[in-house]
Amino acid sequence: MPELRKDPVVGRWVIIATDRARRPSDWNGGPPAESPGGACPFCPGNERFTPPEVLATREGGTGANGPGWSTRVVSNKFPALQVEGGLDRRGEGMYDRMNGVGAHEVIIESPDHFAELSELSLAEIERVLRVYRDRILDLKNDTRFRYILVFKNHGEAAGASLAHGHTQLIATPIIPNVVAEELEGSLQHYRRKERCVFCDMVEQELEDGSRLVTQNEEFVSFEPFAPRLPFETWLLPRRHVSSFEETDPAALPALAAVLQETLRRLHRALNRPPYNFLIHSAPCAEARVPHYHWHMEIMPKLTKVAGFEWGTGFYINSTPPEEAAAYLRSVDPWPSASASRS
Amino acid sequence: MPELRKDPVVGRWVIIATDRARRPSDWNGGPPAESPGGACPFCPGNERFTPPEVLATREGGTGANGPGWSTRVVSNKFPALQVEGGLDRRGEGMYDRMNGVGAHEVIIESPDHFAELSELSLAEIERVLRVYRDRILDLKNDTRFRYILVFKNHGEAAGASLAHGHTQLIATPIIPNVVAEELEGSLQHYRRKERCVFCDMVEQELEDGSRLVTQNEEFVSFEPFAPRLPFETWLLPRRHVSSFEETDPAALPALAAVLQETLRRLHRALNRPPYNFLIHSAPCAEARVPHYHWHMEIMPKLTKVAGFEWGTGFYINSTPPEEAAAYLRSVDPWPSASASRS
Repeated sequence: MPELRKDPVVGRWVIIATDRARRPSDWNGGPPAESPGGACPFCPGNERFTPPEVLATREGGTGANGPGWSTRVVSNKFPALQVEGGLDRRGEGMYDRMNGVGAHEVIIESPDHFAELSELSLAEIERVLRVYRDRILDLKNDTRFRYILVFKNHGEAAGASLAHGHTQLIATPIIPNVVAEELEGSLQHYRRKERCVFCDMVEQELEDGSRLVTQNEEFVSFEPFAPRLPFETWLLPRRHVSSFEETDPAALPALAAVLQETLRRLHRALNRPPYNFLIHSAPCAEARVPHYHWHMEIMPKLTKVAGFEWGTGFYINSTPPEEAAAYLRSVDPWPSASASRS
Repeated sequence: MPELRKDPVVGRWVIIATDRARRPSDWNGGPPAESPGGACPFCPGNERFTPPEVLATREGGTGANGPGWSTRVVSNKFPALQVEGGLDRRGEGMYDRMNGVGAHEVIIESPDHFAELSELSLAEIERVLRVYRDRILDLKNDTRFRYILVFKNHGEAAGASLAHGHTQLIATPIIPNVVAEELEGSLQHYRRKERCVFCDMVEQELEDGSRLVTQNEEFVSFEPFAPRLPFETWLLPRRHVSSFEETDPAALPALAAVLQETLRRLHRALNRPPYNFLIHSAPCAEARVPHYHWHMEIMPKLTKVAGFEWGTGFYINSTPPEEAAAYLRSVDPWPSASASRS
């Protein structure tokens, strides 16, 4: 059973995922080889290599756990958290721990092994976003979960262990530290000003323009004023919405369009970099609050993050966001006729 | 001039180090090649390739910026912060920024190009620790600096750009986020209990024993209860001392001994991994407080940290600290006669 443990100084929870453990001595000689012998478990026809599907969008007449799907959600075969059981919170002297209860799912974005998310059509991207929303709404029925995190590791250097395009979702019984800090910071801003700090930011970025990447009526993407990494890019709804799953389904095509163009500009500018994105959204119990505004943080993996930086929270970024944004705006996100917009 | 910028939501400062900048389009094609053509600027005889020395421990009769030194401190040739000028704090709408004023120094640990810190003799390691202390005490005279961070990147994967053993020091006009969180968390503990949370932790770890790596009368190293990474290791003074520079010089040999043995156990167990260490110490103005306790965090670089993890502060660690500690205790840190203890 995986375990959640709390650091007694800063209150940071970590997952001790014993079920994925290697023996300590396995570290002596580098990481283990990828599992050998070829078939991609996320490709159509190989459905038997994954846990049974939780949700799939399918052609009429096709059955679960066989081909015919367009987007497919399965439990992670090596879950960081385990869905069965109670939390069993307990102390050990000054320390606190609980069972590692949670959900860990994989959203296989399309049957195409080689397509990166932004290479899908707008309708396909919209379908993926709708599946995120459906899974969050379903998991929120489980009251053990306090937070649901949707994130993507693309490329080996960004932590992806399989090449076939996929997004992950983790539902946790605690609120991750960084989200708790954002909630606290945005609440303080709201108390001082009766305004959402993210709404203020969207307004200033649209007016200033120097850090903008792209926008439409509903969404905007820009390089934040104080980015940790070169080409760190944020994507936000222009109107105040606290949680991703509260997004009006009618706005999903506009979200797909800004996400597609933003990713394509990053790919074109940076030669298809490995990247991560994370959806920062309000906790399950606070899906509609005036001070918090959901957003997506996209981080191309261009540099080696030195331990210094994530160990102190103090980042050294060699590329000013105004220069990064100007470069992203200058490239052609649709370089050939074959890369059609929709 | 580099610039410090503050994130308006969580208050995190970042350094926008424009002086080290590449043009944005340089990212399209991977990182630039290392500077070509050979001579190590940290080796004796090559002193002209570094900025002039700030401090050196030298044989009698040798002059500054030539051979004859045993430990040598120079300004970083590509500093993240710049020592001249005022802070010039200013706003830009909702955003805050100031000049990137600070010091960025390199401590060249020994003339030996190939020696890793724990391969030096105890007397040599003690000398390096004394140089850390001397530089901190000197930089504290500059009242623009609020925090002085000593850290080490060892190995390319941990962010080191030169192989010759060295430590870095950055003096900043702000307190890094992670340190601010530790100060806040430890102050809360002190207010509730009138005890230092780190002193409590040292006591529980010594009593429990399952996570201990090594100890002597003055210092102890252990795997923390809630480690972010496999084999994350902390080293603390057993007695309450808030800041590194307040360490009694008479205790430095004991610190050198625990640091040497801890690093050697990690090297032996993990096949000489790349690693980072950071000294977490009280801010300049609060060098003696009852709630904060300086410590060193050592992090072997064994896994790819996915953006997910440093983007949420929520880590998935596949190696329980009790297993890591048992393995570290089981290896022989002095495997051959040539690796003498002192």
